[in-house]
Amino acid sequence: MKNNQFAIVPNDFKNKKIELEKLHFLDSDAEKIDKPCALLKEFLLKAFLDSQSNAIKGQKISGILASEDEDALSYLDDNEPLSKIAFYNIALQLLGFQVGVDFEIDDSISKMKEWNLPVDNSKDPMSTDEVISAWYLLLNTHNKYGQTYIDYLASTGYFAQNYNKFEKPLIFNGKSMPVYDTNELIREVVYVEASQDTDEDGKLDLLKVEILRPKESNKSSVPVLFTASPYNQGTNDESGEKLTHKVNVPLKHKEPVSYKYDQIKFKDKKAELPEPRNIEGKTRKAEQTFDREASYTLNDYFLARGFAVVYSAGIGTKESDGLRTTGSPEETKSATAVIEWLAGNRTAFTNKVDNTEIKAWWSNGNVAMTGRSYLGTLQTAAATTGVDGLKTCISEAAISSWYDYYRDNGLVVAPGGFQGEDADVLAEETFSRQQEAGDYMKIKNKWLTQLKNITKQQDRETGNYNTFWDARNYLKDVKNIKADMVLVHGLNDWNVKPRNVENLWQALKKVPVETKLFLHQGQHIYINAFQSLDFTDMMNLWLTNKLLGIKNKANELIPNVTIQDNVKPETWNTYEDWSDAEVSLEYHLNENSLMSSEISDSKLSFNDKLETSTFDKYTKNYDKWRKDLLEDNSEMKNNRLIFKTKALDDDTFIDGKVNVKVNVASDQNYGMLSFMLVDYGDAKRLTESPQSVEYKRINEGFLWREDSLREFKLQKKTTSYKKITEGHINLQNRTNNYSVDEMEANTFYDVEMELQPTFYHLTKGHQIGLVVYATDFEMTNRGNQDINYSINLKESSIEIPIFDN
Amino acid sequence: MKNNQFAIVPNDFKNKKIELEKLHFLDSDAEKIDKPCALLKEFLLKAFLDSQSNAIKGQKISGILASEDEDALSYLDDNEPLSKIAFYNIALQLLGFQVGVDFEIDDSISKMKEWNLPVDNSKDPMSTDEVISAWYLLLNTHNKYGQTYIDYLASTGYFAQNYNKFEKPLIFNGKSMPVYDTNELIREVVYVEASQDTDEDGKLDLLKVEILRPKESNKSSVPVLFTASPYNQGTNDESGEKLTHKVNVPLKHKEPVSYKYDQIKFKDKKAELPEPRNIEGKTRKAEQTFDREASYTLNDYFLARGFAVVYSAGIGTKESDGLRTTGSPEETKSATAVIEWLAGNRTAFTNKVDNTEIKAWWSNGNVAMTGRSYLGTLQTAAATTGVDGLKTCISEAAISSWYDYYRDNGLVVAPGGFQGEDADVLAEETFSRQQEAGDYMKIKNKWLTQLKNITKQQDRETGNYNTFWDARNYLKDVKNIKADMVLVHGLNDWNVKPRNVENLWQALKKVPVETKLFLHQGQHIYINAFQSLDFTDMMNLWLTNKLLGIKNKANELIPNVTIQDNVKPETWNTYEDWSDAEVSLEYHLNENSLMSSEISDSKLSFNDKLETSTFDKYTKNYDKWRKDLLEDNSEMKNNRLIFKTKALDDDTFIDGKVNVKVNVASDQNYGMLSFMLVDYGDAKRLTESPQSVEYKRINEGFLWREDSLREFKLQKKTTSYKKITEGHINLQNRTNNYSVDEMEANTFYDVEMELQPTFYHLTKGHQIGLVVYATDFEMTNRGNQDINYSINLKESSIEIPIFDN
Repeated sequence: MKNNQFAIVPNDFKNKKIELEKLHFLDSDAEKIDKPCALLKEFLLKAFLDSQSNAIKGQKISGILASEDEDALSYLDDNEPLSKIAFYNIALQLLGFQVGVDFEIDDSISKMKEWNLPVDNSKDPMSTDEVISAWYLLLNTHNKYGQTYIDYLASTGYFAQNYNKFEKPLIFNGKSMPVYDTNELIREVVYVEASQDTDEDGKLDLLKVEILRPKESNKSSVPVLFTASPYNQGTNDESGEKLTHKVNVPLKHKEPVSYKYDQIKFKDKKAELPEPRNIEGKTRKAEQTFDREASYTLNDYFLARGFAVVYSAGIGTKESDGLRTTGSPEETKSATAVIEWLAGNRTAFTNKVDNTEIKAWWSNGNVAMTGRSYLGTLQTAAATTGVDGLKTCISEAAISSWYDYYRDNGLVVAPGGFQGEDADVLAEETFSRQQEAGDYMKIKNKWLTQLKNITKQQDRETGNYNTFWDARNYLKDVKNIKADMVLVHGLNDWNVKPRNVENLWQALKKVPVETKLFLHQGQHIYINAFQSLDFTDMMNLWLTNKLLGIKNKANELIPNVTIQDNVKPETWNTYEDWSDAEVSLEYHLNENSLMSSEISDSKLSFNDKLETSTFDKYTKNYDKWRKDLLEDNSEMKNNRLIFKTKALDDDTFIDGKVNVKVNVASDQNYGMLSFMLVDYGDAKRLTESPQSVEYKRINEGFLWREDSLREFKLQKKTTSYKKITEGHINLQNRTNNYSVDEMEANTFYDVEMELQPTFYHLTKGHQIGLVVYATDFEMTNRGNQDINYSINLKESSIEIPIFDN
Repeated sequence: MKNNQFAIVPNDFKNKKIELEKLHFLDSDAEKIDKPCALLKEFLLKAFLDSQSNAIKGQKISGILASEDEDALSYLDDNEPLSKIAFYNIALQLLGFQVGVDFEIDDSISKMKEWNLPVDNSKDPMSTDEVISAWYLLLNTHNKYGQTYIDYLASTGYFAQNYNKFEKPLIFNGKSMPVYDTNELIREVVYVEASQDTDEDGKLDLLKVEILRPKESNKSSVPVLFTASPYNQGTNDESGEKLTHKVNVPLKHKEPVSYKYDQIKFKDKKAELPEPRNIEGKTRKAEQTFDREASYTLNDYFLARGFAVVYSAGIGTKESDGLRTTGSPEETKSATAVIEWLAGNRTAFTNKVDNTEIKAWWSNGNVAMTGRSYLGTLQTAAATTGVDGLKTCISEAAISSWYDYYRDNGLVVAPGGFQGEDADVLAEETFSRQQEAGDYMKIKNKWLTQLKNITKQQDRETGNYNTFWDARNYLKDVKNIKADMVLVHGLNDWNVKPRNVENLWQALKKVPVETKLFLHQGQHIYINAFQSLDFTDMMNLWLTNKLLGIKNKANELIPNVTIQDNVKPETWNTYEDWSDAEVSLEYHLNENSLMSSEISDSKLSFNDKLETSTFDKYTKNYDKWRKDLLEDNSEMKNNRLIFKTKALDDDTFIDGKVNVKVNVASDQNYGMLSFMLVDYGDAKRLTESPQSVEYKRINEGFLWREDSLREFKLQKKTTSYKKITEGHINLQNRTNNYSVDEMEANTFYDVEMELQPTFYHLTKGHQIGLVVYATDFEMTNRGNQDINYSINLKESSIEIPIFDN
């Protein structure tokens, strides 16, 4: 157990009192109490709900131990001086820690310090003012289950026992409190008219939008969280699967061609558009509702706190018009159209036929976007349009350029875990109009043509960057971003690879918006229910600032860069920047080693072809392939080269993009190389996925949606290596990814490339390994070709950027 | 996909119409419609919620395909004759099946028959009356996600759009409909006074009871589901773990002793009890509430249907008085006390100090108990007291005698997966008073004494049945049962082994109550969210009958015995009885074989001792041990004997208890034998656990608790054997489990025993195997002793009861 809380706002005593009054802990009766023990008892009585009798509250308080031999009720009733130890004995039990299991009585303060839980700097014994201060801090302290004590109290009904008693929104310590009744949420659907006609039916596309908003929004406007999720109206898993591409196909020679970027640059054609629909009526009342939406628990958390939540799946999804495009400007427009409507700048209708307009009259016009993966991608896409109303994005595991999702340096490179997927497959998967057979019948032929076009334009033949991919590259337009950005990414995310976030982070440095970055040790996951980090609280601070305009020091308190350590569990370090190292380690490739100074004259070679049985085995078992790739004397020993440094003298932190230069020849007139940087050394490493600590322990409000508390734990077994990062390149894309370089068999060429960016803590005594190979079973095409690669060591080296603290 | 629905009540046309009127599908407008298409459109319009506009409903209807080239809106508006195929094209889409994925248009009726979905016997084209009949049947038909269509409509808001419009309770097709607003549930706590003082504090034990009831129960009384769960106030996992017994201990010679049962029989001492509390006031209003309870989804389902749900954890749990006992009569009393209060026959108070009485004035006095494992056990325990008010139990995976949970024939035999657990460990685990340090401080010494007594009395030394276990044997009192019983058990439940349910089933045959039995292919699981079986609907039929007194043919429609087939997925067969076979197969043990006629004069022997490294490996990896035990030429080949029949000529069904006779000698004056009956033969068998088919797909009401749809699928890999059943015996308990027989080394003794009862489908061509061994790594103590066992084949045989249909 180690707590990392950033979102506690320092406050002066006067304001603490004012805020405790708004929470109804302090009232005229309580303020008259002049005995510290009596005051603490008063707070406890209130914590156990006004709606329960004093006998019940007394029973609950006497269930708490205050000292070795006295329960809290008897201790506080004695009205002796209140010892600080007793206060924190009680406090820890309120935070869910158990005496005799988690801590021993009277050892509370030292345990809190060990766990990094904040202890008020009261004197001992405590004064009434100090009880107020310490109680204020306690309410903002994380409990055993990763929630602040006030959020925990909310989940027991503290606000729900009388929602009317509390002002709305209720801001406590800079964050919005769950004072909205989630049983009374209004659920309605509208159809936003986008300025495009992607299904070419002669009518502008109408897009289905699902809205959840507190009933209080009928009276005063509320901010909005908008999640654009192409998945949330259903997916076509079977037909997507069928479309998945064969990947056991050979690499071929590409005809050399030299392009200037401008020749492949995407230029938006201004198509002739149908007229907007005539508005034939206006209403404030929606006509359609919906049941259980596909939700994100962070949104659920904010629904209890007075934010509206809006989901829209976009063009080509069930009950919307249009066709799917996988990330093109049309899809961006189908997201910004919703924001424009939420900000009062676009028309929506109550249904698809009557042309009755309905405005987002309940919205305060301030919109944040949320969500992960494709859902995060559409945030970045929308933000780069500079659309009005979009104040911030919490963009998690987002793609910043679709080429970086499905390709790498002139090669087809699949997102980890999804071999054979491509833009066309994803389009088919998300084309949920298909699920309504009556609707699909009318659009089927157009859709099949659209799909055929995507398949052609994505060009799996060359793997080159082209106009199709340029249209899907949001990095070109980062300069337009006006929204403050929170970027969250897994350093082990081999689905949406870290380059996507690093490019965006670097580009945003030049843009006058506030940007925050979180890099965690997970793969492709959410991080809003970790025991060790108050991510949810930080997002509350952030959105309360950005959407409600509350001055709460969000920009200052939330670190610019927060990176989870990969060695010590539950450790989140903060930095000013990422991937800006000024120092680097340089190594020359030597026989089996990486050396700082020695240079070898040798050439080493490997062949990419495997025995058919081995090849077949690896196609079915990537774990086995990865093991054999990285371990000495495996079945792959002739199919790759491994170079290792000597054991490191000190802990070392890789910060950013490792640069690899090799001088290489293929015995064919084509070829590809893959590089993997590896941490070699025995250690108990973090689990790949966070483990469930407490199933469904977190309630996002009161008897509302639940989430399971999670944490990365140390694995039980010692492992002897871990992949740090990787990269792939087609040897004919040495210059760039849109031109094709000439290549002859048995000729040496210089190849230089950056591996995926990372931040990695190497432990003293470990070795850095560079593995050079060709076919990546999990990601590249797999021709199992008899290609021999030779590396000229003399001209081959690696440069590793180092964080120097 | 194969549907097995038993809970559809046959109904005549007149009553179908009356019920559809109560559901508001039929009303004066609808009854005037004389065109079949128009009537079906009217039903569809209603299905898509009155609260939505006609434009929206039209949009939904036109999303459905009615024929190859016409959507349902256009088809029904044409008002041509309604073809039966079109009706079922539409119906299948309403049931969640997708055109082009699950079925092809116009192939609907044959697909429904293939999937065992009921098709109304209308003519073609359909008349309006036939549309009414078919719609009625459709509402009662399971959809793709294992729910009836009306339950699915409820989850979209059909009833919630206007709860007031529907009578309460609303019975449709014999089952209670979800017409109660689960957002308005009343949640209250009372303290029931039990007639015992288990913590000997001079006051009768007060037991905390958590109640959830619909707000309508304020006006008219409701039936109650009561779940007695010792776990639901928390568990002490760490201290339970610490108490877990060492099992790598040797078997020893036991001093022979011959008891008559009466000598070890438990006699309830009538202890002198404190006076009941003086009632110092009366109220109808509770003083305590609670937040998220530890719930069971079947209970949640009934909360939406107007049943109250009551949870109580019993003596020694958090906020209750008393001490844990693991299954003794005191614990039974702490469950029946709650029932007595619910039936109006016992006192409860609003808190533990004020003596203010509160009655269950909202209860109709009819109580059912629900829950699995310990929760099921307490049902059986309560039922055997004949307590008034308890009308029925739905007892799942329940223990009927605690000896059969922790012991077997004079041996310590752990519940599968819980080596070293015993009655004392479970008592400590569930003693959740410990979690309130202020309360625990006051009771700690008494508890430690109690725990010490349990440890002593459970007697791991001999493993014999004794007075301690006799007090925890509910089978003695089955004759007192007055409640109708539903028994549910896994045929692969090696935690609570099948003997527990078989003994109860046999004993209940002599008791004049209605008993139903469900045997599934799972381990220790719930079965209320299977795609292939309408268990939840059956329980609705059952409880609507038993607790609301509705005559709905529950007794007739629910089969007496329903057994899931272990060969064909999604197949549930029905029988009149279980374990009553009149036919049996008899085999003699021969060299490596089981022969019908040939008798061998040989003696075969095996030794129980393993190499230390092998022993250590097996203690950590039961899968590996089980594999080596059952496979030829494994590391265990000298440590067990395997006898196999020749390949079976026909499919064969084992029904009940296999009887094993062996003539055996040990080279020590002590010894134990284990037997495992095995199905040898290559097959793709069912998965051990049900697989999630759709995560959280089932809603138990409207925006209420969610459950994941599950099903046993065929494993992807072929396996060559599967354990059928097993048994264990101490060779000194040849006569019975409470006396100890004499035993000398190297002397042959006759041992006869019954293996755990089963029902098992053996496929033609498979072989039946009997494996004879001693140490069971997963269940028995493991002394790794050098003991040599010899089996005299001539006097050894096996008798297998066969279901003869």
